[in-house]
Amino acid sequence: MNVTVRQKSKQYRTVTYNRDRNEVVLIEQRLLPHRFKTIATKRYEETALAISDMVVRGAGAIGATAAYGLAQGVQSYSGNGLKTFNKLTHKVATTMETARPTAVDPANAIRQVLAAMETGSTVEEKQDLAVAAAEGFANDNVQECQRLGQHGARLIKNGSRILTHCNAGWLAFVDIGSATAPIYEAQSQGISAHVFCDETRPRLQGASLTAWELAQQGISHEIIADNAAGHLMQHGEIDLVITGADRVLGKTGEVTNKIGTYTKAVLAKRHKIPFYVAIPLSTIDWNLDSGAKIPIEERSADEVLYAWGASKSGKVSKFRISNPTSSARNPAFDVTPPELITGIITPAGILKPKQLLKYRTQLT
Amino acid sequence: MNVTVRQKSKQYRTVTYNRDRNEVVLIEQRLLPHRFKTIATKRYEETALAISDMVVRGAGAIGATAAYGLAQGVQSYSGNGLKTFNKLTHKVATTMETARPTAVDPANAIRQVLAAMETGSTVEEKQDLAVAAAEGFANDNVQECQRLGQHGARLIKNGSRILTHCNAGWLAFVDIGSATAPIYEAQSQGISAHVFCDETRPRLQGASLTAWELAQQGISHEIIADNAAGHLMQHGEIDLVITGADRVLGKTGEVTNKIGTYTKAVLAKRHKIPFYVAIPLSTIDWNLDSGAKIPIEERSADEVLYAWGASKSGKVSKFRISNPTSSARNPAFDVTPPELITGIITPAGILKPKQLLKYRTQLT
Repeated sequence: MNVTVRQKSKQYRTVTYNRDRNEVVLIEQRLLPHRFKTIATKRYEETALAISDMVVRGAGAIGATAAYGLAQGVQSYSGNGLKTFNKLTHKVATTMETARPTAVDPANAIRQVLAAMETGSTVEEKQDLAVAAAEGFANDNVQECQRLGQHGARLIKNGSRILTHCNAGWLAFVDIGSATAPIYEAQSQGISAHVFCDETRPRLQGASLTAWELAQQGISHEIIADNAAGHLMQHGEIDLVITGADRVLGKTGEVTNKIGTYTKAVLAKRHKIPFYVAIPLSTIDWNLDSGAKIPIEERSADEVLYAWGASKSGKVSKFRISNPTSSARNPAFDVTPPELITGIITPAGILKPKQLLKYRTQLT
Repeated sequence: MNVTVRQKSKQYRTVTYNRDRNEVVLIEQRLLPHRFKTIATKRYEETALAISDMVVRGAGAIGATAAYGLAQGVQSYSGNGLKTFNKLTHKVATTMETARPTAVDPANAIRQVLAAMETGSTVEEKQDLAVAAAEGFANDNVQECQRLGQHGARLIKNGSRILTHCNAGWLAFVDIGSATAPIYEAQSQGISAHVFCDETRPRLQGASLTAWELAQQGISHEIIADNAAGHLMQHGEIDLVITGADRVLGKTGEVTNKIGTYTKAVLAKRHKIPFYVAIPLSTIDWNLDSGAKIPIEERSADEVLYAWGASKSGKVSKFRISNPTSSARNPAFDVTPPELITGIITPAGILKPKQLLKYRTQLT
């Protein structure tokens, strides 16, 4: 996406790979919206840490980062013994895949890169194939977001008031985004929507990242506390909900996404407001057969007890916003059952959650 | 309640009145949990400002503050002309009543004080009656919270996991609290519950005030992001919800409370979790016949765009947690319909919301 930072405008992807330097280059998302900065990781362990510490976050973005991290890891191997190389490959793949447990994109990305590497017979060939497959994953992600945006844009009318949760914008993918793709596509067709951004505690991705993105793109929007959506729905102020997802079960239609998504789906159902989930293909998990089996990440209590923000002087730091002698629970994701979801917006079209399995061949 | 501040333990009420100095003494709740401090207002206008700026907040607490503010205002009159005195009385009453529009306690408190003043025939008599009626309102509030706590405690079993929203603890009343009263009463009977405190964005009353209160009282609790309750309910981790209210319509059973309450009621209904609302009598509005007529306060966007917190050095300040070029919507309350509410815990017993009118004589 086009980002204006200190009067400069440049086309950015959230994650890219510099093969000459064997570096993965990431936007440091924890500093947004206060500062725009990119960082380069030199070793795959750093890349995995950037995922778990949420330097980079969002289903597609961590998928691509995991793919590049795997390429980076195998690229660092300077010998030509296949056995040691394969051992390293396995170790890097496991590290990247387990950096965050809930999203399925990293696992799917790693699987694609490993499958591509299988076709090579020398270390060098496998290294080349890993890089090409990682680039392929990232490019597919961008193209799929474009295609799903075209399908999703049909849901948006001039003046539509859309609720979104967390950040499923271009920052959460390689570019364009999933939940935001229909809105950006509609904008390019001259259709204006108004977006309510749930602030999305505890990490505030809505207030900081989605709001920043929408402001950059010139899209009308307002931030709301996560508590306010129910009231706005009650008063007929929301026409449509679009969120992203971290894992959609192809077999059951269950959707895992940022904590609070389930709540919004329950509210939307009560108010008969269409609730859509937008995803590229890498977000579909074709293996698990029950939402109860999805590993839900419980993150540090500190994310709830503290918040990151900018003081008057512009300094970005951590503030305690809670009683110092209290602790917190912090489940990072929840699971929404298919009966609460109007449709899944995919690059192949908009489907009912329970139809995914039927159209599996178009979705892989 | 008993508060331990820097090794001192003292019995505090959220609001008291010092007649000799004609001062209303309030706990500065905006500094909690980081600092415990009381302030004294010298003029009724300051007292009204303390309500609208949320130095003091919570239905019962602002009711008592409004009552004391009216007593303070009429006490400041040093003449003996009844006509001028009555004019002043009217002006003070309006100022106190309109400091915040949604809660009905201030209006009910003011009405009680004015009714008491009617029975006096001189300025001095009316001034004495105003002070006595304000003290009466505050004392009734404490006693009613005690009584509703006794009724509500019957709902709590050893090990009950209770969700509460916002702060309806003793800080929100004169003492004891409404939603917390059953928990405190159960504790005094040797019954231990675990409380999940919704952090309650944007003003974070749950994370800061309820958590602080419960920690002071030694009650097991954890803070959660407002987004997390749905997930915990899905996983059978919540047995019971108890909230307070800012206005309950006696004629319809509709409940107005802090933004987000409606959402929790919708979720509780879906998961068949009992949802109770605890109130003293002054929170009942016997006039309005529709929730749509309740004035919902929209507060400054800054409450959503910024948060208050303590830095590492302990300095409490405001910091930006959102994109600097974005704005926000900030409705402060929402309305929950009676069909989502299992019962209203009142000083006269636990009633179905639609039964309130039938038992009006016991509730006034």
